[in-house]
Amino acid sequence: MAQHKLIVNESDVTEVTLAAMAPTPDARLRQIMEAFVRHAHDFVRQVDLTEEEFEYGLQFLARIGQANTDLHNEVTLAADVLGISTLVALRNNPCSHGQTASALLGPFWRQHSPDCRNGDTIARSNTPGEPLLVCGQVRNVNGRPIAGATVDVWQASPVGLYENQDPEQEVMNLRGKFLSDDDGRFHFRTVRPAGYPVPTDGPIGELLRAQNRHPYRPAHIHFMVSAPEHRTLITQVFADEPEALATDVVFGVTRPLVGCLERRASPKAWASEGKDGPAPAPQCRLEYDFVLQPGVPTLPEPPIE
Amino acid sequence: MAQHKLIVNESDVTEVTLAAMAPTPDARLRQIMEAFVRHAHDFVRQVDLTEEEFEYGLQFLARIGQANTDLHNEVTLAADVLGISTLVALRNNPCSHGQTASALLGPFWRQHSPDCRNGDTIARSNTPGEPLLVCGQVRNVNGRPIAGATVDVWQASPVGLYENQDPEQEVMNLRGKFLSDDDGRFHFRTVRPAGYPVPTDGPIGELLRAQNRHPYRPAHIHFMVSAPEHRTLITQVFADEPEALATDVVFGVTRPLVGCLERRASPKAWASEGKDGPAPAPQCRLEYDFVLQPGVPTLPEPPIE
Repeated sequence: MAQHKLIVNESDVTEVTLAAMAPTPDARLRQIMEAFVRHAHDFVRQVDLTEEEFEYGLQFLARIGQANTDLHNEVTLAADVLGISTLVALRNNPCSHGQTASALLGPFWRQHSPDCRNGDTIARSNTPGEPLLVCGQVRNVNGRPIAGATVDVWQASPVGLYENQDPEQEVMNLRGKFLSDDDGRFHFRTVRPAGYPVPTDGPIGELLRAQNRHPYRPAHIHFMVSAPEHRTLITQVFADEPEALATDVVFGVTRPLVGCLERRASPKAWASEGKDGPAPAPQCRLEYDFVLQPGVPTLPEPPIE
Repeated sequence: MAQHKLIVNESDVTEVTLAAMAPTPDARLRQIMEAFVRHAHDFVRQVDLTEEEFEYGLQFLARIGQANTDLHNEVTLAADVLGISTLVALRNNPCSHGQTASALLGPFWRQHSPDCRNGDTIARSNTPGEPLLVCGQVRNVNGRPIAGATVDVWQASPVGLYENQDPEQEVMNLRGKFLSDDDGRFHFRTVRPAGYPVPTDGPIGELLRAQNRHPYRPAHIHFMVSAPEHRTLITQVFADEPEALATDVVFGVTRPLVGCLERRASPKAWASEGKDGPAPAPQCRLEYDFVLQPGVPTLPEPPIE
């Protein structure tokens, strides 16, 4: 550890702290910690943090860490509601090649969701809600359809819970994996998803209340689209009222991911498109295409189940 | 919650996050959170944080919170080794009126330490170490002695442990409360303290190792000096080798708090000062005066015992 000059008053503290960290062998860790210390110290100076506020902040941080369990990640939630998670995700997944925008994986993806055929429903018995048809095409950045792409979908039920949060739902309800056809197209039936609140029984719930913010995410469907020789796309398509879209508590909505929910009034128009089975009553339809860039397919770490 | 514009790309995220927090009713909370979000986002942008680094950072934060117990505060330790605690303490306790500089209370202060008389030793039976005489005067900012000031002292033993960390020591060993005499003077006997490491078995220990930093605090004695109609002074006086002083892991040493350890070679010179009892063999002496500013005496929150 490098010897540093003695602190005389508060204006010396940052320089002395950085000098103590200067011998860090890993250059990246040194860079990250130096930037962290500069911002933390600037924050303290800028707001003239009092000792009481500092102590409260430390205890708040401790409570966030202690609220973390295998099933609930309060630290991630903190980063989410402060816009940090979305910032990191968008910066690391720029849409520079015309591919579809990414969104957060979220905590509810599961491996081994059921293999389905185009036209199947993922809403198993007794799932309430407005019927919804989802369809789209998987293409590469040159506009060519990708046949045999895997479209892994998952969503919350209209009560706002994923099946593994909700004992009322069948296992793997509202989850399924589809393959795109020769023309790159897929379609499936489901029910219209609902928005749902993030957990508010921990310190982040307190923060949201103190900030007069509601805890809701807008209704969305998760997609993980993968194909050989293409980078796996993890994203969410949002389909909700405009106000809900513009107040997502975790800032996960980006304009390119807002899908258009279309209500079909005429069963005839519906049937004329040649979809399987009898046309249902007037229903909702969400059409969204996915564009993959070249790359190596990857799977995220499976969550603890 | 205010409706905000939809995020199109990463450059929108900060503005949208701040817009969501704008309705916070408490102006101070709004100011603090706005500054926090700006610095957090600037940090992410400045270091081009990757998703892997972000995930590691979140898990590191969770581990810091989870290492917190009633007896060990890893979150405070994190703030300490990043210079943040010292920065907050120095900014909130400027020495603008000639008073003695403050230092951190630390986690080892205890209420109800023994009442002692000037000249008593606080090193109870079997405490090893080099004998040390500590003496000084309590004055106000106009230079007038303060009689009857309470000088509450506590320190680690030469093995680097406080009595309540060490089953080998008597209860309340190396702790005592003295009253200044009519001339504002106090003196007591003890043993020379030793530096000691902060706890390194948690995530902050990992960080220190990754930064090539030793975990030691230099030897010091804690003082809490109080008197009616004066602001209570919480401080530490450092008495160690220069190198140790300049590499304090928690940046607690400030130049005004470095005391001078003086070795007395001659028992005669010692006795001539009229201290009680026979002069011991050549011994160490630390002389340090405390200057209190006018104000209201306060006691810190007692720690959990």
